[in-house]
Amino acid sequence: MQYYLDGFRSGSPDQKNAQPNRREYGAHAPLPETVDVLIAGTGPAGLCLAAQMSQFDDISTMIIERSPGNIAKGKADGINTRTMEMFQAFGFAESVKRESYWVNQTAFWMPDPENPANIKRVGRVQDVADDSSEMPHTLINQARVHELFLEVMKNSSSRLQPDYGWMVVDLSIGDEHEGFPVSVTLQDTGVNWGEIKTVRAKYVVGCDGARSNVRKAIGGELSGDSAHQAWGVMDILANTDFPDIRQKCLITSAHEGNVLILPREGGYLFRMYVELDKLKDDERAAERQFSQQDMIRVANQIIRPYTIDVKEVVWWSIYEIGHRMTNRFDNVAEDAVGEQHPRVFTAGDACHTHSPKAGQGMNVSMQDTFNLGWKLAHVLQGRSDPGLLRSYSSERWAEAKRLVDTDHEWARIMSAPPGESDLDRDDEPRFMRQFKENLEFTGGLAVHYGPSRIVGSSEYQALATGLEVGRRFHSAPVVRLSDVKPMQLGHVAQADGRWRLYLFAPQNDTGEAPSVLADVCQWLESHPDSPIQRYTRSDEDLDALIDVRAIFQQTFEALNYETMPPLLRPMKGRLGLQDHEKIFCVDHKGEGDIFQMRGINRAQGCMIVVRPDQYIAHVLPIRATSELKVFFDGVFVKP
Amino acid sequence: MQYYLDGFRSGSPDQKNAQPNRREYGAHAPLPETVDVLIAGTGPAGLCLAAQMSQFDDISTMIIERSPGNIAKGKADGINTRTMEMFQAFGFAESVKRESYWVNQTAFWMPDPENPANIKRVGRVQDVADDSSEMPHTLINQARVHELFLEVMKNSSSRLQPDYGWMVVDLSIGDEHEGFPVSVTLQDTGVNWGEIKTVRAKYVVGCDGARSNVRKAIGGELSGDSAHQAWGVMDILANTDFPDIRQKCLITSAHEGNVLILPREGGYLFRMYVELDKLKDDERAAERQFSQQDMIRVANQIIRPYTIDVKEVVWWSIYEIGHRMTNRFDNVAEDAVGEQHPRVFTAGDACHTHSPKAGQGMNVSMQDTFNLGWKLAHVLQGRSDPGLLRSYSSERWAEAKRLVDTDHEWARIMSAPPGESDLDRDDEPRFMRQFKENLEFTGGLAVHYGPSRIVGSSEYQALATGLEVGRRFHSAPVVRLSDVKPMQLGHVAQADGRWRLYLFAPQNDTGEAPSVLADVCQWLESHPDSPIQRYTRSDEDLDALIDVRAIFQQTFEALNYETMPPLLRPMKGRLGLQDHEKIFCVDHKGEGDIFQMRGINRAQGCMIVVRPDQYIAHVLPIRATSELKVFFDGVFVKP
Ligand SMILES: Cc1cc2nc3c(=O)[nH]c(=O)nc-3n(C[C@H](O)[C@H](O)[C@H](O)COP(=O)(O)OP(=O)(O)OC[C@H]3O[C@@H](n4cnc5c(N)ncnc54)[C@H](O)[C@@H]3O)c2cc1C
Ligand SMILES: Cc1cc2nc3c(=O)[nH]c(=O)nc-3n(C[C@H](O)[C@H](O)[C@H](O)COP(=O)(O)OP(=O)(O)OC[C@H]3O[C@@H](n4cnc5c(N)ncnc54)[C@H](O)[C@@H]3O)c2cc1C
Repeated sequence: MQYYLDGFRSGSPDQKNAQPNRREYGAHAPLPETVDVLIAGTGPAGLCLAAQMSQFDDISTMIIERSPGNIAKGKADGINTRTMEMFQAFGFAESVKRESYWVNQTAFWMPDPENPANIKRVGRVQDVADDSSEMPHTLINQARVHELFLEVMKNSSSRLQPDYGWMVVDLSIGDEHEGFPVSVTLQDTGVNWGEIKTVRAKYVVGCDGARSNVRKAIGGELSGDSAHQAWGVMDILANTDFPDIRQKCLITSAHEGNVLILPREGGYLFRMYVELDKLKDDERAAERQFSQQDMIRVANQIIRPYTIDVKEVVWWSIYEIGHRMTNRFDNVAEDAVGEQHPRVFTAGDACHTHSPKAGQGMNVSMQDTFNLGWKLAHVLQGRSDPGLLRSYSSERWAEAKRLVDTDHEWARIMSAPPGESDLDRDDEPRFMRQFKENLEFTGGLAVHYGPSRIVGSSEYQALATGLEVGRRFHSAPVVRLSDVKPMQLGHVAQADGRWRLYLFAPQNDTGEAPSVLADVCQWLESHPDSPIQRYTRSDEDLDALIDVRAIFQQTFEALNYETMPPLLRPMKGRLGLQDHEKIFCVDHKGEGDIFQMRGINRAQGCMIVVRPDQYIAHVLPIRATSELKVFFDGVFVKP
Repeated sequence: MQYYLDGFRSGSPDQKNAQPNRREYGAHAPLPETVDVLIAGTGPAGLCLAAQMSQFDDISTMIIERSPGNIAKGKADGINTRTMEMFQAFGFAESVKRESYWVNQTAFWMPDPENPANIKRVGRVQDVADDSSEMPHTLINQARVHELFLEVMKNSSSRLQPDYGWMVVDLSIGDEHEGFPVSVTLQDTGVNWGEIKTVRAKYVVGCDGARSNVRKAIGGELSGDSAHQAWGVMDILANTDFPDIRQKCLITSAHEGNVLILPREGGYLFRMYVELDKLKDDERAAERQFSQQDMIRVANQIIRPYTIDVKEVVWWSIYEIGHRMTNRFDNVAEDAVGEQHPRVFTAGDACHTHSPKAGQGMNVSMQDTFNLGWKLAHVLQGRSDPGLLRSYSSERWAEAKRLVDTDHEWARIMSAPPGESDLDRDDEPRFMRQFKENLEFTGGLAVHYGPSRIVGSSEYQALATGLEVGRRFHSAPVVRLSDVKPMQLGHVAQADGRWRLYLFAPQNDTGEAPSVLADVCQWLESHPDSPIQRYTRSDEDLDALIDVRAIFQQTFEALNYETMPPLLRPMKGRLGLQDHEKIFCVDHKGEGDIFQMRGINRAQGCMIVVRPDQYIAHVLPIRATSELKVFFDGVFVKP
């Protein structure tokens, strides 16, 4: 962590210095009249966006929630590895790692062929494939995830807090040229129930869940599966003789239905999902009146010969959900694209809903707004033209679609009769094989954004075969040169709206002029065509917009810090202090060589451009300065 | 982390449920009349003890501080690996790892033989030897360490806070049979300056620094070096062309003196120590009037040809200190040992002071009270007789003595004329060689308590050559069987006053009866001679006093959870929930085999008894139940 740039201050480094004249949140303090970004809903989508926006001192944000406070329990609990990587950028991945359950192995149980009334373990699968992410797949209750985002907000310079007890009832979009064109009608859901208030915003984001009023206001409609799936879900403190109770388990019984076991944070709690439409007819008929006791009874039938002795039901629910989505995630109709720029967006369950089986609901919701946040910031800060905002809907719609399709495919495979040749190739049960094939996808690692003004072509992909354009930057171990610290390169990326430019040096390049790396740094620092020169404002630090880091092929003893290019040791902040965290070399502690792990061309090196949301925007030859210029000219506008 | 044992609760798991009728800390709330433990001073020693005591719901603690609040800057900054291991037990090692500077390499600079007016790097040493600890050596300001302990206190069930603005002026020890025999006179140092108040305590611990009033009250006197060493110390935000500024550096100039560079948390700050008695005569003469500017000028002379451009002086001080210590760390005079039990203790700087060069001051202070805390708890809870308390002074006095001696030895070697054969054996500068030899010591890892009622003999040491009786339990990687989680075995030890008993299974033992491991578990759980049977109270969980964990030689696939001994899956808490975190196996992810790493006899296995402060109390054959009984009979008294 870097801090004290503008002088020493005691206390937690996570807490930023407070802004003067920031909004007051005391009792009876008024709501603001206008705001840059108004967010509806404090679910994972809304809180992730609020936490992101709170990182920008010059943008005002307001987040509205119908309920009187944060949820205490229930809802989703799966944090895939991709989301953990994002949490790292927000600074709380370590907290989640410490508090959460880690999914290390997933166990599969099926009817015992010798006695089909009983279940038997048929196999286990390592849940996070080696080197697929440096992060674990974790399970923790959604309320706690909310709290961690709330802490980020509260630690920000605006000390952002939700406005609980207000709901968005409607909104209207006025003239583009008004300062705050979106007029939002709020209704008090607290003591002054029914009281109406209007707030005007530059942008509105509906993170208000499956029954979203924001979606309705922009004419969006969820469509898709008409047949909803119903799940009984229960978080319990219970004892059992089932030996895999602390492992994620997919359990299929011969005749009683299926149950999914998810062990949870704290070492005692676990969750059970019972797929209600897979129950026997008599069970299912009672679905509407299905009770806690029914669910416990059914689970006990499924896991025979084992039993579950429930001590405390923490939360339970019948969760009915279809795979449904809207046709776009903003207010611009297909025929107006190009003429009109979006002012209102929807994210998360407000525009797409998913079965809990793949554990994606909470994850995609946050990834939606992590995609949107930096784009809003760029436009509000005048760094990019508002045309950039359209990419939110196109990128995230395609991902939601892929999610729905994958789940349908999974369902098709699972429900096909046994023995079909393409499905039952070998001994391994098909759902185990399919689970393995889906791991990258369920880990959130398969997301792949198509070419656009913010995703370049893959012309030079061969220079870094393991860092694919359009996919997330896949971290790997490095050593920081200045202090010889072993670390993950990906962890330099904070949720701060900045772009990263990784310069992977060609073999034998030490950074000392004359060298390719020295030339590129020189160009980046001072050439009039350099995006840093063109788009960084005169009152900003050299790395305020594009944060350049270099990675050398040598280990630390073979490099000289004093001959490194000045761009890699920039003076920053109020005091003009030197930043010593831009230069990396290859790990010498047996963690692996990043050049080899990510397939980087050793002879040539390369440049990797990474977006503020950690997605790879471009892979370019190390000397491709003109391509770099062209790419960033498509992203930014002159200040 | 394990939590929710007594039911689900939302919020941070670090925050314990609050006690009913706990003390109120609001403005104008009264001080208590009596308290079990009164601690004087909120330095590292006092706060570590307060954090420890706050873990025991049935013990009341009060911590008094003369100043009006926590310090904001300055003082010590080095956290050695041993202290990091202790922080892990308190739950905040991850926070320190995230926020702090890590000392990875220490660089040595000496006069350039070709131009002695300039310095030149002569070498580097890896600062934490491979597998000497799983923790890094870190640097972070003392104020922040204080804050992290304060958080532990505040999260405890008593919501313990310091009483700032009071000083201990004197104390007297009354009759042993009074409930609260120590009468402590406090004086208000705040608004009601001079007001006197008396609090009676069962035990008093003077953590009140080098000028300790508690030490004076029990007739202790610091003695040792009469010649104080004087150091100029300065925490600065500065730029420099000195290339190793983000590495710990020992710099010796030809004629200008020595400087020690310690990079600090946040990436910009660093500390410089200038050894004032090594300065040229004209500099030294001015020692008393030595100013900030002098210090900066001298540092610039020493590091020639490089320069330091100071942007902000965060803190600076002339720190004068001798290696001094008292002859005992409690109130019992030598001739009364055996007749009298200690009631008053001193810890940290109150009873021993050290040169900052070895970076030990803050570390030993905390290790002092970590040694004392569980002993106080055992006696106050009636688990041990008060004779146990004497071991605090004997164990910690010997360690302080070793520290003083080692520092003297270091000084002797450093000041001997060059060319003496035993000191200059080879090319490597003697101070670099000596630094390497001292690493285990400066890491806090050389601490070795002698045999006593709480440290057994080393008769069976050959069964675990890497886990030495009397030294700290050296962690190693394992995998937890129930959830296949890769982790450090040492991290199961929390600062909760419990003993750990590690059962290392013999080869091929799977825990399934009949087997050696099953037998031992059976004995521990139910035999009347078992210390668990004898000393655990009937209303307590089976592992409340002695926490048994088993480690098997197989990897996870080769073991069956369902056939493990019941002792290793105990039912606990209000709900009788099963604990699934007692059984470990060998790592399968390439982190290493604990049996091999710690030299454990594969054929026989062994038992390792670990004290609540993480020191190894005993190594025993796996079947040595009668020796185990004898050992614990020496520790505990029947409830
Ligand atoms: C009862 C329930 C159980 C679930 N169980 C699971 C599960 O077991 N597994 C799983 O993967 N997923 C589950 N989910 C889904 C998962 O929680 C969602 O996918 C995830 O929360 C989506 O996040 P979101 O931020 O888009 O929406 P939500 O988390 O739904 O958040 C929307 C928020 O907006 C608020 N809101 C709604 N309307 C307005 C308005 N007009 N104005 C202001 N605020 C408004 C709501 O009160 C809510 O706080 C469950 C959802 C529900 C509701
Ligand atoms: C100015 C200064 C600079 C230092 N610099 C370094 C350094 O550079 N490197 C290094 O390794 N170590 C340094 N130290 C030493 C290091 O801080 C100590 O070794 C460490 O703090 C010892 O911890 P402690 O808890 O024993 O005592 P302290 O940290 O000294 O804490 C004692 C506490 O007791 C309080 N107190 C004193 N008397 C009373 C009383 N009668 N009643 C109630 N409260 C009382 C004090 O206000 C203080 O808060 C420095 C110490 C000082 C004072």
